[in-house]
Amino acid sequence: MKFVHETPAQRVVFAPGEAVRTVVDEVARLGAKRVLVVAGPSAAALAAALSDRLAGARIHDEVIEHVPVGAAERARTAAREHAADALVCVGGGSATGLAKAVAHTTGLPIIAVPTTYAGSEATNVWGLTRDGVKTTGVDAGVLPATVVYDASLLLTLPGELAAASGLNALAHCVDAMWGPRADPIDRALAEEAARALGSGLPEVKAHPDRLAGHEQMLYGAYLAAVVFASAGAGLHHKICHVLGGRFDLPHAQTHAVVLPHVLALNAPHAPEAERRIAAALRAPTATEGLAALYARLDAPTALKELGMPESGMAEAVEPILAAVPEGNPAPVTRDRLSALLRAAWEGDSSR
Amino acid sequence: MKFVHETPAQRVVFAPGEAVRTVVDEVARLGAKRVLVVAGPSAAALAAALSDRLAGARIHDEVIEHVPVGAAERARTAAREHAADALVCVGGGSATGLAKAVAHTTGLPIIAVPTTYAGSEATNVWGLTRDGVKTTGVDAGVLPATVVYDASLLLTLPGELAAASGLNALAHCVDAMWGPRADPIDRALAEEAARALGSGLPEVKAHPDRLAGHEQMLYGAYLAAVVFASAGAGLHHKICHVLGGRFDLPHAQTHAVVLPHVLALNAPHAPEAERRIAAALRAPTATEGLAALYARLDAPTALKELGMPESGMAEAVEPILAAVPEGNPAPVTRDRLSALLRAAWEGDSSR
Repeated sequence: MKFVHETPAQRVVFAPGEAVRTVVDEVARLGAKRVLVVAGPSAAALAAALSDRLAGARIHDEVIEHVPVGAAERARTAAREHAADALVCVGGGSATGLAKAVAHTTGLPIIAVPTTYAGSEATNVWGLTRDGVKTTGVDAGVLPATVVYDASLLLTLPGELAAASGLNALAHCVDAMWGPRADPIDRALAEEAARALGSGLPEVKAHPDRLAGHEQMLYGAYLAAVVFASAGAGLHHKICHVLGGRFDLPHAQTHAVVLPHVLALNAPHAPEAERRIAAALRAPTATEGLAALYARLDAPTALKELGMPESGMAEAVEPILAAVPEGNPAPVTRDRLSALLRAAWEGDSSR
Repeated sequence: MKFVHETPAQRVVFAPGEAVRTVVDEVARLGAKRVLVVAGPSAAALAAALSDRLAGARIHDEVIEHVPVGAAERARTAAREHAADALVCVGGGSATGLAKAVAHTTGLPIIAVPTTYAGSEATNVWGLTRDGVKTTGVDAGVLPATVVYDASLLLTLPGELAAASGLNALAHCVDAMWGPRADPIDRALAEEAARALGSGLPEVKAHPDRLAGHEQMLYGAYLAAVVFASAGAGLHHKICHVLGGRFDLPHAQTHAVVLPHVLALNAPHAPEAERRIAAALRAPTATEGLAALYARLDAPTALKELGMPESGMAEAVEPILAAVPEGNPAPVTRDRLSALLRAAWEGDSSR
């Protein structure tokens, strides 16, 4: 038992139905007086409610996917011109990502209010896109100081997006089981995350208008992101990174499709992961548990349906082989990888 | 699902057999040049080895149980005279407690090297004793920045002390299930802690000279202290605090005796705790799991054998009733509490 576990400081508040009041309290707790509220149009109502209650707040509403450098610069300028002393971001990964871009150069603390299961609010990773190329980095200063989870904000998340975003969260905790820095603490929390997501996903599908499922999902997505940040990207995320970048595939859906195939490859070589995921999904084996979950969700199952060309499989093999993390439980040969990609492309769960 | 979870920053290194090398690395990581090594006589060999490898280190070896104010003052003076820029403490709760007393007034970072399962290294609580009265407080600055767990240092821990210290650690995670600030994250990690301690305790008893059991114990004791610090003291710790203070009972042994009785009281009213503890101990119920564990350990079972007078039961009822945490799962009436104390005093596990 030899490992290093770094726990970063973070304050997390679960407060269903109370986002506004809680953010006001948390801003006061930080002693902030001039908040920049980063929130795209889809979060405009909440941003306005916050701005009403926070004297000295200003709203910045230019939120663009993948955080283009130009948008980051404009948000930084807005923070400087406003003399902001804290950032509040409301939205999915893009809003959080923009706030992180500002925090990265200004050192301002972030209060994040997530409205998807993206999990960016629990990681120290920032990303910027220039000319279509995404650069990411790690900076302890971009980890939000405080996260406010209000499940009522998720009630309007469209069903398909909820499923894809939720499976993307599940990919965080499954891949954390064998990430390059994975340790027993990560795996224990990953099991708890998988348990919450495994029960929350069907609940959200059955009752998207009830808080209970979304509460489970936010809780699971949070822990999944915590352990993913701690363990580092495993094989699953390396594969999705190559595929997503080359073929411009939708992020969460790509993760949803690829996950069962990576699990099928690694689980026989990762007994603790196998046992923990199976227990979390209340199934005899991890792969059976995941298959049963997918069957209940009408989850996307084939990369070809997401727009990946058939020729892409051959093209992706070498870049993925070059990115396989050291210590991946299963040996990843060219043949195994090709078979995995073929199965994911065709949507063949039997392979 | 409404709660606040505060995660403090901490770096934890599990490095069996490598305490010296790891501490040297971690001191360099902090950029410290003038370390004060706090270590009592029982840790003298390791302190000397550290001092040999750390240029600019000085050893302070006056470590006294319960951290008397005078001893704390002398340690602070030693740190000031040495112009220390970091503290390394080696030992059990008393060594860690002394380092915390110095950190509390100086702000110096601590690297803790625990040699028992006390868990103080994972909490932000400090304690000082003046004229026999213990004062405790909370200060984020006393939480060690880094903990180095080297299971080989535990190989010489006497068997009885290992069992009592281990059951004291188990009490941390069981009581965290219903502590005043307990949340789902605490309970998930408490289950993991109980699993590690439940397997580690019999392993250490059977093979005290092997690393494996001590590794499990350190891992479990660490997580147990983390969740205890997060959840706050529950009914069990309030009872032990009153008993220990009034009748000068041995700390770890008192916790070991009282724990099954508090579990028996609360478990029927705390279904998640019941389920998690039972799962961790691989038993049909939590109470059966704990009973089976105790039976394997020859654990202390009766307060009367620890020196508590029979009249003490009546004396303790009111102070304990006054300290019952709000939200304790079971209602704690005078009758129930009297029965609990009687059973713990007599060592009657059937009540």
